[in-house]
Amino acid sequence: MRYDLLGSRQHDNMSAMGLRRVLVTGAEGTIGTAVREHLGDRYELVSLTLTQQDFPSHIGDIADLDAILPAFESVDSVVHLAGSAAIETPWEDVLRNNVVGTYNVFEAARRAGVARVVFASSNHAVGMYELDGAPGLYDLDDERSCDHTAEIRPDSLYGVSKACGEALGRFYSELHGLCVFCLRIGAVRANDDPTVPSESPLLDLDAEGRRNRMRAVWLSRRDCAELIARCLEVDDVSWAIVYGVSGNPRRFWDLTHAQELLGWEPQDAAPP
Amino acid sequence: MRYDLLGSRQHDNMSAMGLRRVLVTGAEGTIGTAVREHLGDRYELVSLTLTQQDFPSHIGDIADLDAILPAFESVDSVVHLAGSAAIETPWEDVLRNNVVGTYNVFEAARRAGVARVVFASSNHAVGMYELDGAPGLYDLDDERSCDHTAEIRPDSLYGVSKACGEALGRFYSELHGLCVFCLRIGAVRANDDPTVPSESPLLDLDAEGRRNRMRAVWLSRRDCAELIARCLEVDDVSWAIVYGVSGNPRRFWDLTHAQELLGWEPQDAAPP
Repeated sequence: MRYDLLGSRQHDNMSAMGLRRVLVTGAEGTIGTAVREHLGDRYELVSLTLTQQDFPSHIGDIADLDAILPAFESVDSVVHLAGSAAIETPWEDVLRNNVVGTYNVFEAARRAGVARVVFASSNHAVGMYELDGAPGLYDLDDERSCDHTAEIRPDSLYGVSKACGEALGRFYSELHGLCVFCLRIGAVRANDDPTVPSESPLLDLDAEGRRNRMRAVWLSRRDCAELIARCLEVDDVSWAIVYGVSGNPRRFWDLTHAQELLGWEPQDAAPP
Repeated sequence: MRYDLLGSRQHDNMSAMGLRRVLVTGAEGTIGTAVREHLGDRYELVSLTLTQQDFPSHIGDIADLDAILPAFESVDSVVHLAGSAAIETPWEDVLRNNVVGTYNVFEAARRAGVARVVFASSNHAVGMYELDGAPGLYDLDDERSCDHTAEIRPDSLYGVSKACGEALGRFYSELHGLCVFCLRIGAVRANDDPTVPSESPLLDLDAEGRRNRMRAVWLSRRDCAELIARCLEVDDVSWAIVYGVSGNPRRFWDLTHAQELLGWEPQDAAPP
Protein backbone atom coordinates (compact mmCIF):
# COMPACT_ATOMS: atom_id res chain seq x y z
CA MET A 1 0.00 0.00 0.00
CA ARG A 2 1.50 3.31 -1.05
CA TYR A 3 0.09 6.65 -0.15
CA ASP A 4 -0.28 9.52 -2.59
CA LEU A 5 1.14 12.76 -1.29
CA LEU A 6 -0.75 15.69 -2.72
CA GLY A 7 2.22 17.42 -4.32
CA SER A 8 1.40 18.35 -7.86
CA ARG A 9 -2.34 17.88 -7.34
CA GLN A 10 -2.50 20.95 -5.15
CA HIS A 11 -3.47 24.07 -6.96
CA ASP A 12 -4.06 27.71 -6.29
CA ASN A 13 -7.75 28.14 -5.79
CA MET A 14 -8.25 31.87 -5.76
CA SER A 15 -11.31 33.88 -6.54
CA ALA A 16 -11.41 36.45 -9.35
CA MET A 17 -10.48 39.06 -6.74
CA GLY A 18 -7.38 37.13 -5.71
CA LEU A 19 -8.92 35.91 -2.47
CA ARG A 20 -8.35 32.40 -1.22
CA ARG A 21 -11.44 30.19 -1.56
CA VAL A 22 -12.27 28.59 1.78
CA LEU A 23 -15.00 26.05 2.45
CA VAL A 24 -16.67 26.34 5.87
CA THR A 25 -18.57 23.24 7.04
CA GLY A 26 -21.21 23.95 9.66
CA ALA A 27 -21.31 27.54 8.50
CA GLU A 28 -24.72 27.98 10.16
CA GLY A 29 -23.38 27.27 13.65
CA THR A 30 -22.07 29.58 16.37
CA ILE A 31 -18.46 29.50 15.20
CA GLY A 32 -19.45 29.36 11.54
CA THR A 33 -21.40 32.57 12.02
CA ALA A 34 -18.38 34.21 13.66
CA VAL A 35 -16.20 33.11 10.72
CA ARG A 36 -18.66 34.54 8.20
CA GLU A 37 -18.86 37.81 10.12
CA HIS A 38 -15.16 38.33 10.71
CA LEU A 39 -13.46 36.67 7.72
CA GLY A 40 -15.98 37.24 4.93
CA ASP A 41 -13.96 40.13 3.48
CA ARG A 42 -10.58 38.35 3.62
CA TYR A 43 -11.54 35.09 1.92
CA GLU A 44 -14.04 33.92 -0.62
CA LEU A 45 -16.05 31.80 1.79
CA VAL A 46 -18.02 28.83 0.50
CA SER A 47 -20.56 27.42 2.97
CA LEU A 48 -21.64 23.84 3.56
CA THR A 49 -24.69 23.48 5.82
CA LEU A 50 -27.07 20.73 6.81
CA THR A 51 -30.17 22.68 5.78
CA GLN A 52 -31.02 25.65 3.60
CA GLN A 53 -29.99 29.01 5.09
CA ASP A 54 -30.60 32.67 4.35
CA PHE A 55 -27.13 32.84 2.81
CA PRO A 56 -25.77 30.93 -0.24
CA SER A 57 -24.70 27.45 0.76
CA HIS A 58 -24.04 23.91 -0.41
CA ILE A 59 -26.56 21.68 1.35
CA GLY A 60 -25.32 18.30 2.57
CA ASP A 61 -24.91 15.99 5.53
CA ILE A 62 -21.23 15.43 6.37
CA ALA A 63 -22.08 11.82 7.23
CA ASP A 64 -22.65 11.31 3.47
CA LEU A 65 -19.35 11.52 1.60
CA ASP A 66 -20.88 11.56 -1.87
CA ALA A 67 -23.26 14.36 -0.91
CA ILE A 68 -20.53 16.71 0.27
CA LEU A 69 -17.88 16.08 -2.40
CA PRO A 70 -19.14 18.81 -4.79
CA ALA A 71 -18.61 21.47 -2.10
CA PHE A 72 -14.88 20.68 -2.05
CA GLU A 73 -14.30 21.39 -5.74
CA SER A 74 -11.93 24.30 -6.40
CA VAL A 75 -11.42 25.31 -2.80
CA ASP A 76 -7.99 26.04 -1.36
CA SER A 77 -8.72 25.25 2.31
CA VAL A 78 -11.45 23.86 4.55
CA VAL A 79 -12.58 25.07 7.97
CA HIS A 80 -14.36 22.05 9.41
CA LEU A 81 -16.88 23.10 12.06
CA ALA A 82 -19.84 20.77 11.36
CA GLY A 83 -20.74 18.09 13.87
CA SER A 84 -22.50 17.48 17.16
CA ALA A 85 -21.34 20.21 19.53
CA ALA A 86 -22.97 19.22 22.84
CA ILE A 87 -20.83 17.44 25.41
CA GLU A 88 -23.70 15.13 26.36
CA THR A 89 -24.21 13.86 22.79
CA PRO A 90 -24.72 10.08 22.85
CA TRP A 91 -22.35 7.68 21.10
CA GLU A 92 -24.48 6.98 18.03
CA ASP A 93 -24.59 10.68 17.22
CA VAL A 94 -20.93 11.54 17.85
CA LEU A 95 -19.98 8.42 15.90
CA ARG A 96 -22.05 9.53 12.91
CA ASN A 97 -21.56 13.29 12.99
CA ASN A 98 -18.09 13.67 14.47
CA VAL A 99 -16.13 10.49 13.68
CA VAL A 100 -17.61 9.51 10.31
CA GLY A 101 -18.29 13.16 9.43
CA THR A 102 -14.70 14.19 10.10
CA TYR A 103 -13.34 11.23 8.14
CA ASN A 104 -15.56 12.26 5.24
CA VAL A 105 -14.29 15.84 5.38
CA PHE A 106 -10.62 14.78 5.34
CA GLU A 107 -11.28 12.22 2.61
CA ALA A 108 -13.22 14.70 0.49
CA ALA A 109 -10.40 17.22 0.94
CA ARG A 110 -7.84 14.63 -0.18
CA ARG A 111 -9.83 13.65 -3.25
CA ALA A 112 -10.35 17.28 -4.25
CA GLY A 113 -6.68 18.19 -3.77
CA VAL A 114 -7.42 20.67 -0.97
CA ALA A 115 -4.22 21.92 0.65
CA ARG A 116 -5.25 22.44 4.27
CA VAL A 117 -7.95 21.65 6.80
CA VAL A 118 -8.61 23.59 9.99
CA PHE A 119 -10.50 21.21 12.29
CA ALA A 120 -12.61 22.32 15.25
CA SER A 121 -11.43 19.85 17.86
CA SER A 122 -12.18 20.58 21.51
CA ASN A 123 -10.50 20.82 24.87
CA HIS A 124 -12.83 17.96 25.84
CA ALA A 125 -10.34 15.64 24.09
CA VAL A 126 -8.23 16.32 27.19
CA GLY A 127 -11.07 17.42 29.48
CA MET A 128 -10.07 15.16 32.38
CA TYR A 129 -7.33 17.65 33.24
CA GLU A 130 -10.08 20.17 33.95
CA LEU A 131 -12.32 17.68 35.78
CA ASP A 132 -9.37 16.72 37.98
CA GLY A 133 -8.42 20.31 38.73
CA ALA A 134 -11.75 22.13 39.04
CA PRO A 135 -12.76 24.41 40.62
CA GLY A 136 -9.33 25.42 41.99
CA LEU A 137 -7.98 25.34 38.44
CA TYR A 138 -10.04 28.46 37.67
CA ASP A 139 -8.48 30.51 40.47
CA LEU A 140 -6.49 33.57 39.47
CA ASP A 141 -3.43 32.41 41.40
CA ASP A 142 -3.59 28.78 40.21
CA GLU A 143 -0.54 28.16 38.06
CA ARG A 144 -1.50 24.82 36.53
CA SER A 145 -1.61 24.84 32.75
CA CYS A 146 -2.19 22.16 30.12
CA ASP A 147 -0.35 22.26 26.80
CA HIS A 148 -0.48 20.47 23.43
CA THR A 149 1.76 17.64 24.65
CA ALA A 150 -0.85 16.52 27.23
CA GLU A 151 -1.99 12.91 27.01
CA ILE A 152 -5.39 12.27 25.43
CA ARG A 153 -7.86 12.19 28.36
CA PRO A 154 -11.43 12.60 27.05
CA ASP A 155 -14.10 13.60 29.56
CA SER A 156 -17.01 12.40 27.41
CA LEU A 157 -17.83 10.42 24.30
CA TYR A 158 -17.90 13.80 22.59
CA GLY A 159 -14.28 14.26 23.70
CA VAL A 160 -13.45 10.76 22.42
CA SER A 161 -14.89 11.70 19.03
CA LYS A 162 -12.67 14.80 18.90
CA ALA A 163 -9.60 12.72 19.79
CA CYS A 164 -10.54 10.38 16.91
CA GLY A 165 -10.77 13.39 14.61
CA GLU A 166 -7.30 14.52 15.66
CA ALA A 167 -5.91 11.02 14.95
CA LEU A 168 -7.54 11.13 11.52
CA GLY A 169 -6.06 14.55 10.93
CA ARG A 170 -2.57 13.38 11.84
CA PHE A 171 -2.93 10.48 9.42
CA TYR A 172 -4.07 12.73 6.57
CA SER A 173 -1.30 15.19 7.35
CA GLU A 174 1.53 12.70 7.42
CA LEU A 175 0.37 10.16 4.83
CA HIS A 176 -1.49 12.32 2.34
CA GLY A 177 0.29 15.66 2.65
CA LEU A 178 -2.60 17.82 3.88
CA CYS A 179 -1.79 20.63 6.30
CA VAL A 180 -4.00 20.00 9.33
CA PHE A 181 -4.68 22.31 12.26
CA CYS A 182 -6.62 20.99 15.25
CA LEU A 183 -8.10 23.73 17.42
CA ARG A 184 -9.05 22.71 20.94
CA ILE A 185 -11.60 25.45 21.21
CA GLY A 186 -12.96 26.72 24.53
CA ALA A 187 -16.37 28.38 24.84
CA VAL A 188 -17.47 30.51 21.89
CA ARG A 189 -20.85 32.10 22.57
CA ALA A 190 -23.48 33.62 20.31
CA ASN A 191 -23.76 36.58 22.73
CA ASP A 192 -19.94 36.82 23.04
CA ASP A 193 -20.39 37.47 26.78
CA PRO A 194 -17.90 35.87 29.21
CA THR A 195 -19.83 37.05 32.28
CA VAL A 196 -22.74 34.64 31.75
CA PRO A 197 -21.89 31.64 33.96
CA SER A 198 -20.92 28.32 32.41
CA GLU A 199 -23.44 25.47 32.23
CA SER A 200 -20.71 22.91 33.11
CA PRO A 201 -22.74 19.74 32.50
CA LEU A 202 -19.83 17.52 33.57
CA LEU A 203 -19.09 19.30 36.84
CA ASP A 204 -20.96 19.95 40.08
CA LEU A 205 -20.01 23.61 40.34
CA ASP A 206 -21.52 26.20 42.62
CA ALA A 207 -22.40 29.68 41.36
CA GLU A 208 -18.86 30.97 41.86
CA GLY A 209 -17.38 27.96 40.08
CA ARG A 210 -19.69 28.42 37.10
CA ARG A 211 -18.84 32.11 37.01
CA ASN A 212 -15.10 31.47 37.09
CA ARG A 213 -15.23 28.60 34.63
CA MET A 214 -16.64 30.74 31.83
CA ARG A 215 -14.06 33.44 32.56
CA ALA A 216 -11.36 30.77 32.18
CA VAL A 217 -12.49 29.03 28.98
CA TRP A 218 -14.12 31.87 27.02
CA LEU A 219 -12.94 32.49 23.46
CA SER A 220 -14.21 35.70 21.92
CA ARG A 221 -15.70 35.51 18.48
CA ARG A 222 -13.05 37.72 16.90
CA ASP A 223 -10.20 35.86 18.64
CA CYS A 224 -11.68 32.62 17.32
CA ALA A 225 -11.93 33.95 13.78
CA GLU A 226 -8.39 35.33 13.90
CA LEU A 227 -7.03 32.01 15.20
CA ILE A 228 -8.65 30.29 12.23
CA ALA A 229 -7.24 32.96 9.88
CA ARG A 230 -3.73 32.35 11.24
CA CYS A 231 -4.14 28.65 10.43
CA LEU A 232 -5.19 29.58 6.89
CA GLU A 233 -2.22 31.92 6.43
CA VAL A 234 0.76 30.33 8.19
CA ASP A 235 3.49 28.82 6.02
CA ASP A 236 5.69 25.83 6.78
CA VAL A 237 3.39 24.22 9.32
CA SER A 238 1.83 20.92 8.27
CA TRP A 239 0.44 19.81 11.62
CA ALA A 240 -0.61 21.53 14.83
CA ILE A 241 -2.74 21.02 17.91
CA VAL A 242 -3.38 24.32 19.68
CA TYR A 243 -5.80 25.60 22.30
CA GLY A 244 -8.25 28.39 21.62
CA VAL A 245 -9.16 30.57 24.59
CA SER A 246 -8.88 34.33 24.85
CA GLY A 247 -6.21 35.96 27.00
CA ASN A 248 -8.27 35.30 30.13
CA PRO A 249 -6.45 35.79 33.45
CA ARG A 250 -8.11 32.59 34.70
CA ARG A 251 -7.18 30.46 31.67
CA PHE A 252 -5.52 27.07 32.18
CA TRP A 253 -5.14 25.96 28.56
CA ASP A 254 -1.68 26.94 27.33
CA LEU A 255 -1.45 29.47 24.48
CA THR A 256 2.33 29.40 23.99
CA HIS A 257 2.27 26.86 21.17
CA ALA A 258 -0.36 28.83 19.21
CA GLN A 259 1.66 32.01 19.70
CA GLU A 260 4.96 30.45 18.64
CA LEU A 261 3.71 28.27 15.80
CA LEU A 262 0.97 30.45 14.33
CA GLY A 263 1.82 33.92 15.57
CA TRP A 264 -1.64 34.16 17.10
CA GLU A 265 -2.17 36.65 19.94
CA PRO A 266 -5.65 36.92 21.46
CA GLN A 267 -6.96 40.50 21.48
CA ASP A 268 -9.65 39.95 24.08
CA ALA A 269 -9.76 38.75 27.67
CA ALA A 270 -12.58 37.88 30.05
CA PRO A 271 -12.69 40.03 33.18
CA PRO A 272 -10.99 38.50 36.24
CA MET B 1 -24.51 14.45 33.31
CA ARG B 2 -22.94 12.36 36.07
CA TYR B 3 -20.97 9.22 35.46
CA ASP B 4 -21.39 6.04 37.46
CA LEU B 5 -18.15 4.66 38.79
CA LEU B 6 -18.31 0.90 39.06
CA GLY B 7 -17.52 0.69 42.76
CA SER B 8 -20.01 -1.58 44.43
CA ARG B 9 -21.21 -3.07 41.16
CA GLN B 10 -17.93 -4.91 40.71
CA HIS B 11 -17.97 -8.43 41.99
CA ASP B 12 -15.66 -11.40 42.24
CA ASN B 13 -16.35 -13.59 39.29
CA MET B 14 -14.49 -16.77 40.03
CA SER B 15 -15.07 -20.26 38.75
CA ALA B 16 -15.83 -23.19 41.07
CA MET B 17 -12.10 -23.92 41.09
CA GLY B 18 -11.28 -20.40 42.26
CA LEU B 19 -10.01 -19.30 38.85
CA ARG B 20 -10.77 -15.88 37.51
CA ARG B 21 -13.34 -15.91 34.70
CA VAL B 22 -11.95 -14.10 31.65
CA LEU B 23 -13.80 -13.36 28.41
CA VAL B 24 -11.64 -13.46 25.27
CA THR B 25 -13.10 -11.70 22.22
CA GLY B 26 -11.67 -12.89 18.92
CA ALA B 27 -10.65 -16.12 20.61
CA GLU B 28 -10.35 -17.80 17.20
CA GLY B 29 -7.59 -15.46 15.98
CA THR B 30 -3.82 -15.73 16.13
CA ILE B 31 -3.46 -14.06 19.52
CA GLY B 32 -6.67 -15.61 20.82
CA THR B 33 -5.26 -19.03 20.04
CA ALA B 34 -2.04 -18.17 21.90
CA VAL B 35 -4.10 -17.03 24.90
CA ARG B 36 -6.12 -20.25 24.92
CA GLU B 37 -2.95 -22.34 24.66
CA HIS B 38 -0.91 -20.56 27.30
CA LEU B 39 -3.48 -19.25 29.79
CA GLY B 40 -6.20 -21.92 29.65
CA ASP B 41 -5.00 -23.52 32.89
CA ARG B 42 -4.67 -20.26 34.83
CA TYR B 43 -8.07 -18.74 34.10
CA GLU B 44 -11.52 -19.96 33.28
CA LEU B 45 -11.55 -18.66 29.74
CA VAL B 46 -14.85 -17.79 28.07
CA SER B 47 -14.64 -17.30 24.31
CA LEU B 48 -16.50 -14.90 22.04
CA THR B 49 -16.06 -15.60 18.34
CA LEU B 50 -17.66 -14.42 15.12
CA THR B 51 -18.49 -17.95 13.94
CA GLN B 52 -18.82 -21.41 15.44
CA GLN B 53 -15.52 -23.03 16.40
CA ASP B 54 -14.29 -26.45 17.46
CA PHE B 55 -14.15 -25.17 21.06
CA PRO B 56 -17.02 -23.85 23.24
CA SER B 57 -17.78 -20.24 22.42
CA HIS B 58 -20.35 -17.49 22.53
CA ILE B 59 -21.11 -16.56 18.91
CA GLY B 60 -21.58 -12.88 18.12
CA ASP B 61 -20.44 -9.94 16.04
CA ILE B 62 -18.80 -7.24 18.20
CA ALA B 63 -20.40 -4.63 15.95
CA ASP B 64 -23.75 -5.69 17.51
CA LEU B 65 -23.88 -4.63 21.17
CA ASP B 66 -27.04 -6.55 22.01
CA ALA B 67 -25.65 -9.74 20.49
CA ILE B 68 -22.50 -9.73 22.61
CA LEU B 69 -23.94 -8.63 25.97
CA PRO B 70 -24.71 -12.17 27.22
CA ALA B 71 -21.04 -13.15 26.89
CA PHE B 72 -20.10 -10.48 29.46
CA GLU B 73 -22.31 -11.86 32.23
CA SER B 74 -20.39 -13.05 35.30
CA VAL B 75 -16.91 -12.46 33.93
CA ASP B 76 -14.21 -10.73 35.93
CA SER B 77 -12.11 -9.40 33.04
CA VAL B 78 -12.14 -9.10 29.26
CA VAL B 79 -9.28 -9.60 26.81
CA HIS B 80 -10.46 -7.77 23.70
CA LEU B 81 -8.76 -9.14 20.59
CA ALA B 82 -11.61 -9.14 18.03
CA GLY B 83 -11.47 -6.77 15.09
CA SER B 84 -9.94 -6.25 11.69
CA ALA B 85 -6.24 -7.03 12.04
CA ALA B 86 -4.83 -6.14 8.61
CA ILE B 87 -3.07 -2.79 8.22
CA GLU B 88 -4.63 -2.27 4.80
CA THR B 89 -8.22 -2.63 6.06
CA PRO B 90 -10.40 0.08 4.47
CA TRP B 91 -12.19 2.71 6.55
CA GLU B 92 -15.67 1.16 6.48
CA ASP B 93 -14.32 -2.05 8.00
CA VAL B 94 -12.07 -0.54 10.68
CA LEU B 95 -14.91 1.83 11.57
CA ARG B 96 -17.31 -1.08 12.04
CA ASN B 97 -15.04 -3.73 13.51
CA ASN B 98 -12.47 -1.69 15.43
CA VAL B 99 -14.11 1.62 16.39
CA VAL B 100 -17.72 0.55 16.90
CA GLY B 101 -16.66 -2.94 18.00
CA THR B 102 -14.32 -1.59 20.67
CA TYR B 103 -16.93 0.87 21.91
CA ASN B 104 -19.38 -2.04 22.20
CA VAL B 105 -16.87 -4.10 24.18
CA PHE B 106 -16.17 -1.29 26.67
CA GLU B 107 -19.87 -0.49 26.95
CA ALA B 108 -20.83 -4.13 27.46
CA ALA B 109 -18.10 -4.42 30.11
CA ARG B 110 -19.45 -1.36 31.90
CA ARG B 111 -23.03 -2.60 31.83
CA ALA B 112 -22.01 -6.03 33.15
CA GLY B 113 -19.84 -4.60 35.93
CA VAL B 114 -16.63 -6.10 34.52
CA ALA B 115 -13.58 -4.84 36.41
CA ARG B 116 -10.91 -4.70 33.71
CA VAL B 117 -10.39 -4.77 29.95
CA VAL B 118 -7.13 -5.67 28.22
CA PHE B 119 -7.35 -4.15 24.73
CA ALA B 120 -5.23 -5.25 21.78
CA SER B 121 -4.19 -1.89 20.43
CA SER B 122 -1.27 -1.75 18.00
CA ASN B 123 2.03 0.00 17.43
CA HIS B 124 0.37 1.27 14.23
CA ALA B 125 -1.33 3.91 16.42
CA VAL B 126 2.14 5.48 16.45
CA GLY B 127 3.48 3.76 13.33
CA MET B 128 4.81 6.97 11.74
CA TYR B 129 7.80 6.76 14.08
CA GLU B 130 8.72 3.51 12.34
CA LEU B 131 7.96 4.81 8.83
CA ASP B 132 10.17 7.83 9.51
CA GLY B 133 13.03 5.75 10.92
CA ALA B 134 13.06 2.62 8.76
CA PRO B 135 15.15 0.79 7.79
CA GLY B 136 17.96 2.26 9.92
CA LEU B 137 15.70 1.96 12.96
CA TYR B 138 16.06 -1.83 12.76
CA ASP B 139 19.86 -1.74 12.99
CA LEU B 140 21.48 -3.35 16.01
CA ASP B 141 23.39 -0.19 16.87
CA ASP B 142 20.46 2.21 16.34
CA GLU B 143 19.59 3.69 19.70
CA ARG B 144 16.25 5.32 18.82
CA SER B 145 13.35 4.09 20.91
CA CYS B 146 9.69 5.06 21.17
CA ASP B 147 7.87 4.97 24.50
CA HIS B 148 4.29 5.28 25.77
CA THR B 149 4.48 9.07 25.91
CA ALA B 150 4.90 9.33 22.12
CA GLU B 151 2.36 11.46 20.26
CA ILE B 152 -0.38 9.64 18.37
CA ARG B 153 0.92 9.26 14.81
CA PRO B 154 -1.11 6.60 12.96
CA ASP B 155 0.39 5.14 9.79
CA SER B 156 -2.93 3.84 8.46
CA LEU B 157 -6.67 4.00 9.02
CA TYR B 158 -6.16 0.79 10.96
CA GLY B 159 -3.79 2.72 13.21
CA VAL B 160 -6.35 5.53 13.51
CA SER B 161 -8.94 2.98 14.65
CA LYS B 162 -6.57 1.73 17.36
CA ALA B 163 -5.93 5.30 18.55
CA CYS B 164 -9.72 5.73 18.77
CA GLY B 165 -9.91 2.53 20.83
CA GLU B 166 -7.28 3.87 23.21
CA ALA B 167 -9.21 7.14 23.62
CA LEU B 168 -12.36 5.13 24.36
CA GLY B 169 -10.41 3.06 26.88
CA ARG B 170 -9.12 6.15 28.65
CA PHE B 171 -12.67 7.49 28.89
CA TYR B 172 -14.03 4.23 30.34
CA SER B 173 -11.10 4.05 32.74
CA GLU B 174 -11.41 7.57 34.10
CA LEU B 175 -15.17 8.14 33.92
CA HIS B 176 -16.55 4.67 34.59
CA GLY B 177 -13.86 3.13 36.78
CA LEU B 178 -12.78 0.24 34.54
CA CYS B 179 -9.12 -0.79 34.63
CA VAL B 180 -7.95 -0.57 31.01
CA PHE B 181 -4.71 -1.85 29.53
CA CYS B 182 -3.84 -0.96 25.92
CA LEU B 183 -1.23 -3.24 24.40
CA ARG B 184 0.56 -1.88 21.34
CA ILE B 185 1.34 -5.33 20.09
CA GLY B 186 4.08 -6.05 17.55
CA ALA B 187 4.01 -9.11 15.26
CA VAL B 188 2.52 -12.28 16.76
CA ARG B 189 2.69 -15.13 14.28
CA ALA B 190 0.87 -18.46 14.02
CA ASN B 191 4.21 -20.18 13.35
CA ASP B 192 5.95 -18.20 16.14
CA ASP B 193 8.98 -17.82 13.85
CA PRO B 194 10.85 -14.48 13.87
CA THR B 195 13.14 -15.51 11.02
CA VAL B 196 10.41 -15.36 8.36
CA PRO B 197 10.75 -11.87 6.82
CA SER B 198 8.11 -9.22 7.43
CA GLU B 199 5.55 -8.42 4.77
CA SER B 200 5.81 -4.65 5.53
CA PRO B 201 2.90 -3.45 3.38
CA LEU B 202 3.54 0.18 4.32
CA LEU B 203 7.25 0.20 3.57
CA ASP B 204 9.40 -0.35 0.50
CA LEU B 205 11.94 -2.61 2.18
CA ASP B 206 14.54 -4.78 0.49
CA ALA B 207 15.15 -8.37 1.64
CA GLU B 208 17.50 -7.30 4.43
CA GLY B 209 15.02 -4.69 5.65
CA ARG B 210 12.19 -7.20 5.73
CA ARG B 211 14.42 -9.65 7.56
CA ASN B 212 15.46 -7.11 10.17
CA ARG B 213 11.99 -5.69 10.60
CA MET B 214 10.50 -8.98 11.78
CA ARG B 215 13.45 -9.47 14.15
CA ALA B 216 12.68 -6.03 15.61
CA VAL B 217 8.89 -6.26 16.05
CA TRP B 218 8.36 -9.96 16.78
CA LEU B 219 6.40 -10.88 19.91
CA SER B 220 6.54 -14.56 20.80
CA ARG B 221 3.27 -16.28 21.58
CA ARG B 222 4.21 -17.04 25.16
CA ASP B 223 5.54 -13.52 25.77
CA CYS B 224 2.25 -12.17 24.41
CA ALA B 225 0.20 -14.45 26.65
CA GLU B 226 2.29 -13.57 29.71
CA LEU B 227 1.97 -9.84 29.00
CA ILE B 228 -1.82 -10.27 28.95
CA ALA B 229 -1.64 -12.31 32.17
CA ARG B 230 0.32 -9.52 33.88
CA CYS B 231 -2.46 -7.08 32.92
CA LEU B 232 -5.01 -9.46 34.43
CA GLU B 233 -3.03 -9.81 37.66
CA VAL B 234 -1.52 -6.42 38.44
CA ASP B 235 -3.01 -4.42 41.31
CA ASP B 236 -3.28 -0.66 41.64
CA VAL B 237 -3.05 0.15 37.92
CA SER B 238 -6.18 1.55 36.34
CA TRP B 239 -4.72 2.70 33.02
CA ALA B 240 -1.73 1.74 30.92
CA ILE B 241 -0.43 1.93 27.38
CA VAL B 242 2.49 -0.46 26.87
CA TYR B 243 4.33 -1.97 23.92
CA GLY B 244 4.44 -5.69 23.30
CA VAL B 245 7.56 -6.98 21.57
CA SER B 246 9.90 -9.71 22.77
CA GLY B 247 13.38 -8.89 24.07
CA ASN B 248 14.67 -8.53 20.51
CA PRO B 249 18.10 -6.91 20.16
CA ARG B 250 16.73 -4.90 17.20
CA ARG B 251 13.60 -3.66 18.99
CA PHE B 252 12.74 0.04 18.93
CA TRP B 253 9.52 0.02 20.97
CA ASP B 254 10.34 0.74 24.59
CA LEU B 255 9.62 -1.96 27.17
CA THR B 256 10.56 -0.02 30.31
CA HIS B 257 7.03 1.07 31.11
CA ALA B 258 5.66 -2.50 30.82
CA GLN B 259 8.47 -3.73 33.05
CA GLU B 260 8.00 -1.05 35.68
CA LEU B 261 4.20 -0.89 35.70
CA LEU B 262 3.30 -4.54 35.12
CA GLY B 263 6.44 -6.41 36.10
CA TRP B 264 6.50 -8.02 32.65
CA GLU B 265 9.82 -9.37 31.40
CA PRO B 266 9.87 -11.01 27.96
CA GLN B 267 11.37 -14.50 28.04
CA ASP B 268 12.08 -14.75 24.33
CA ALA B 269 14.13 -12.77 21.84
CA ALA B 270 14.45 -12.91 18.07
CA PRO B 271 17.97 -13.68 16.84
CA PRO B 272 20.07 -10.63 15.91
